[in-house]
Amino acid sequence: MNVVILAAGMGKRMQSALPKVLHPLAGKPLLSHVIDTARSLQNIGSANICVIYGHGGEQVPATVAADDLRFAKQEPQLGTGHAVAQASAVLDDSVPTLVLYGDVPLTTSASLQRLITAAGQDKLAILTAEMADPTGLGRMVREDGKIVRIVEQKDANEAEKQITEINTGILIAPTAKLKYWLTTLSNNNAQGEYYLTDIVARAVADGVAVVSAQPDAIWETLGVNSKVQLAELERVHQSNIAKRLLEQGVTLMDPARIDVRGTLTCGRDVSIDVGCVFEGCVTLEDGVSVGPNCVIKDAHIKAGSSIKAFCHIDEAIIGAKSQIGPYARLRPGTELADDVHIGNFVEVKNSQIAAHSKANHLAYIGDATVGSRVNIGAGTITCNYDGANKFRTIIEDDVFIGSDSQLVAPVTVGKGATLGAGTTLTKDAPAGKLTVSRARQITLDNWQRPQKIKK
Amino acid sequence: MNVVILAAGMGKRMQSALPKVLHPLAGKPLLSHVIDTARSLQNIGSANICVIYGHGGEQVPATVAADDLRFAKQEPQLGTGHAVAQASAVLDDSVPTLVLYGDVPLTTSASLQRLITAAGQDKLAILTAEMADPTGLGRMVREDGKIVRIVEQKDANEAEKQITEINTGILIAPTAKLKYWLTTLSNNNAQGEYYLTDIVARAVADGVAVVSAQPDAIWETLGVNSKVQLAELERVHQSNIAKRLLEQGVTLMDPARIDVRGTLTCGRDVSIDVGCVFEGCVTLEDGVSVGPNCVIKDAHIKAGSSIKAFCHIDEAIIGAKSQIGPYARLRPGTELADDVHIGNFVEVKNSQIAAHSKANHLAYIGDATVGSRVNIGAGTITCNYDGANKFRTIIEDDVFIGSDSQLVAPVTVGKGATLGAGTTLTKDAPAGKLTVSRARQITLDNWQRPQKIKK
Amino acid sequence: MNVVILAAGMGKRMQSALPKVLHPLAGKPLLSHVIDTARSLQNIGSANICVIYGHGGEQVPATVAADDLRFAKQEPQLGTGHAVAQASAVLDDSVPTLVLYGDVPLTTSASLQRLITAAGQDKLAILTAEMADPTGLGRMVREDGKIVRIVEQKDANEAEKQITEINTGILIAPTAKLKYWLTTLSNNNAQGEYYLTDIVARAVADGVAVVSAQPDAIWETLGVNSKVQLAELERVHQSNIAKRLLEQGVTLMDPARIDVRGTLTCGRDVSIDVGCVFEGCVTLEDGVSVGPNCVIKDAHIKAGSSIKAFCHIDEAIIGAKSQIGPYARLRPGTELADDVHIGNFVEVKNSQIAAHSKANHLAYIGDATVGSRVNIGAGTITCNYDGANKFRTIIEDDVFIGSDSQLVAPVTVGKGATLGAGTTLTKDAPAGKLTVSRARQITLDNWQRPQKIKK
Repeated sequence: MNVVILAAGMGKRMQSALPKVLHPLAGKPLLSHVIDTARSLQNIGSANICVIYGHGGEQVPATVAADDLRFAKQEPQLGTGHAVAQASAVLDDSVPTLVLYGDVPLTTSASLQRLITAAGQDKLAILTAEMADPTGLGRMVREDGKIVRIVEQKDANEAEKQITEINTGILIAPTAKLKYWLTTLSNNNAQGEYYLTDIVARAVADGVAVVSAQPDAIWETLGVNSKVQLAELERVHQSNIAKRLLEQGVTLMDPARIDVRGTLTCGRDVSIDVGCVFEGCVTLEDGVSVGPNCVIKDAHIKAGSSIKAFCHIDEAIIGAKSQIGPYARLRPGTELADDVHIGNFVEVKNSQIAAHSKANHLAYIGDATVGSRVNIGAGTITCNYDGANKFRTIIEDDVFIGSDSQLVAPVTVGKGATLGAGTTLTKDAPAGKLTVSRARQITLDNWQRPQKIKK
Repeated sequence: MNVVILAAGMGKRMQSALPKVLHPLAGKPLLSHVIDTARSLQNIGSANICVIYGHGGEQVPATVAADDLRFAKQEPQLGTGHAVAQASAVLDDSVPTLVLYGDVPLTTSASLQRLITAAGQDKLAILTAEMADPTGLGRMVREDGKIVRIVEQKDANEAEKQITEINTGILIAPTAKLKYWLTTLSNNNAQGEYYLTDIVARAVADGVAVVSAQPDAIWETLGVNSKVQLAELERVHQSNIAKRLLEQGVTLMDPARIDVRGTLTCGRDVSIDVGCVFEGCVTLEDGVSVGPNCVIKDAHIKAGSSIKAFCHIDEAIIGAKSQIGPYARLRPGTELADDVHIGNFVEVKNSQIAAHSKANHLAYIGDATVGSRVNIGAGTITCNYDGANKFRTIIEDDVFIGSDSQLVAPVTVGKGATLGAGTTLTKDAPAGKLTVSRARQITLDNWQRPQKIKK
Repeated sequence: MNVVILAAGMGKRMQSALPKVLHPLAGKPLLSHVIDTARSLQNIGSANICVIYGHGGEQVPATVAADDLRFAKQEPQLGTGHAVAQASAVLDDSVPTLVLYGDVPLTTSASLQRLITAAGQDKLAILTAEMADPTGLGRMVREDGKIVRIVEQKDANEAEKQITEINTGILIAPTAKLKYWLTTLSNNNAQGEYYLTDIVARAVADGVAVVSAQPDAIWETLGVNSKVQLAELERVHQSNIAKRLLEQGVTLMDPARIDVRGTLTCGRDVSIDVGCVFEGCVTLEDGVSVGPNCVIKDAHIKAGSSIKAFCHIDEAIIGAKSQIGPYARLRPGTELADDVHIGNFVEVKNSQIAAHSKANHLAYIGDATVGSRVNIGAGTITCNYDGANKFRTIIEDDVFIGSDSQLVAPVTVGKGATLGAGTTLTKDAPAGKLTVSRARQITLDNWQRPQKIKK
């Protein structure tokens, strides 16, 4: 099968410097949704996908480029028929051609599959939909049940205006015929454009059967022309994702208040509280609970872990039965083993922390390798950056780091060592011993408290 | 009155290791909602509540066990009629028996009261509801206005399918009759189960009047068989709670974005911003305002206090006119007197703080007793844990703790004392004086800044 | 034009100490919304706005006082006709008088403009609305299309009850006539009140034409009598604001989860994630992105800056291409130049930070002037307060502040200086050199770890 995706439109109403089809829905460009749907159809043969671009120039192919995609530039843009014609050179005549739209992101594979089946090898098949209010849309005119033409709103007579079956624009056609029909289109209309829909009349004239299939839901056929419409489809998409998670057995405190921008894979007995955002590829294993208002991106959270409120996790692996947050920030390169506790106002970056270790309060752990059963006191900071270079801190098993210590990397705290509170550690701390850097505590007898300066 | 609550079902569609009736709605097991509603009916006599359990085994009685509950095990599970029959031995024949469902959590006392009244002592009363689309549900067949039988969807003829009054399953019956009817049920049906609804035909045959009452809303009769349905009822319940708070005069910035899992008691002129979650027993006295995205559990917040955005409060008491947050974390055992200020990135645990004291920035106050008018500087940490034991810190009235001090407990800072910035306090600081532990400030003249290492 | 705004009502159902018209909608008193709408009509001449107050006493005029407003006290409160009569003395007979309601906040200027146009100089014009369910509301009785009277629900006959055009209460009348009609009103009714609506019958009797205009939406005419209604209108208003932002090209991840309480001005390609709250006057320049769950008040954020999740910004200016958050708190007086990075758990107050400087982790920067290319290490604290007075910290260009330093103000760190980790800086640090205050690191060989005390 050939697939042509029209993605040349300007999208003036988006009021953006970004080409319309590159605006993200659930974190992914509209066009990429359509491409991924096209790819999901490949079980019916190796798809030959051609993207027609134009407005925004090379930005569109540059963004979605992949080995299995071809691109054709439409310039100037003279209508949908003209757009499809740009792909003619690369379309294989021996298989049909499916026409999709880069700004119609939510059509499902199932609906397209029905359309493809309806078309077979030699029919023109159009995806049509029943609309309660079809005003403004092209109506499917049928005679004896057969599609005979599409009539646009402005050309429709009173009887035709009553028709509620509309043209979604998505269609599949026998390729050789399609190419020929495209050469016969006229732009003798108000817009001066070549309309793809005019091929229906050509097919009927040629005696090619015109059939239809219907999507499961109207939103599958909706396009994005404005931020209003983008927001509407974002919510439809998020609602679909939430429903799917619920059906898989995930507990969602509010299906209207979860955002998944990427892939969220959940085990059994996972619960997700309100206001959470998931981005990229996130896995929550069995029994994981995520508290309210968390932001989690590209993370793997193992079984039985609890992520409390207000956590911000990015490119991190969290071991089983760990306790994270509230207000924990795990940055890229964080790898926590099982039963690790990371508490409030703690930042971890590019560090490995072994099992049963804890950093419960106000700390910065960056570029560190931390052993098992380590206790990192409140206010501890790994000084990993000297203004020019970054160095690693090694904290071995069973270490106790006193509060408010600074570990000036590169430095190692030996197994079982203890650092006294407030230590500035500039040299390695030997294993099993107490190391401290501390000035003597003194009291000034004659000191006077500052007084409020009168102004 | 006897109450039988059917709670033996498996809930396969919940896709969970937890028995269906133990899944939480608003933080409380579904079954507990039903039990609490049954208890609320006790004003009509001492209720005799019997829970029929089965799937999930002893987990169900173990979770909801209470002195006023009896339990009967249904094993194997042979239908609703069979389930109720397990309770026969403990049902008092002198009062009627109400049948409820452990997975139908939101039936109101008011609706049940109407049903009970309709039943009197000798009638069978069924809670029925009008459904716009009754497809799939048992229809109430009436002749001359009287209920004569319940017909299931699959057995209904065309006329019966048009009936929109459906059986909710909730009913109340004279107990001796009920017990007898249950012994006469047959499992000669597609499922091979004994259906409780078959008692309607028995009652009619016995000349017992069959009457009905209606709930105020459809959601009162909805059961939970999947996470989709659980989420739907969670939102219904939360919406009901929000409406009740509004009617009491609470200002909610968005009634669709508040979650109350437990009891939230509010005084006059309380306002709650968007995205807040309340758990357990929370009291907000007059004039309290809660900012956006707070999580508050088991807390008492006194009059006029302001809780700013992103606070996380758990088992804490907050005095009047206090200022908390943003980003304040109050952990269990926190008791703040009036006019206390706890600011951003400050954690307080198991500590008492007297009036007019402040800890406004980046601090950890754990296991501390803090006096009045104390100023705790940014970055202050009470070192309450030596790796083995926890100790208390005492900070007396009018103390000024310089920034980034560490107070190594057990330690006392005397009344009116001042600690210099960066002090590591290991011995008591005498009252009224400046105590400091500080190394001399030196400048290295010939020091060279590190250079970026070329790789 | 004269404008009379009725704002004397008690609002008992609000259950609040605050007069009803002062309850905030989108952060602004209901009454102020109405006053601002009246002011927006000034293009039709200098409006003479008179607010009728009563309940809550002087609190109402004190809250909204402005040079262009007059106030008249209604005491006792004897109905809407009586209320308008209190303004008679200040109404200019030569122009018409528009009557608005202090608890009907969302009427649009456009709708009022149509009403004003319909009235001309000599007609009585009433804002009416079509209601699907008009039960309880005053119906517009027309004969031959002309309004002849308003009939209240309780007085309506069956035919009149079928009328779906209702009286909103908002009207405009020729002033001299209005004054006269008001003197003729009777309180001979169930409530014993003087009803403004009775002037319709007076106008008809006087041969004054009674005309109407309609609002664009029903919510324009809804009043606030309870917190339920206040919450409903808050959501309508927020939904309107969200729609306007979308139409301007702003990307909103969820239009149902943004709250704007004040003025939010956005450039091109601005995106706002879920759960954000904007207060006061906020400007987001081109390409600004705001992450989930941020609270931003009175701030100017320049082009290309990224505000990450959980930021709290108040009275701050943020330069272009800056990176803020997550969990950054910018307090009043914060001025960041371009390309400044403020990271997690960092608080900035009353400080200027020049271009390319960074404070990425756990720091408090208060009353500081920070140069360019400065790196402020994790845990750094400006000790700006000695318990009595606040002092400034000066950090010149190219300084590197080691982690966990305390800068005891007043103090200056010279250009290019470096502070070692853990420094307590009490005297100025000279430019270009390393300054440090550090005790020697020692290890105690014979030290024993504390053991768990058995209880």
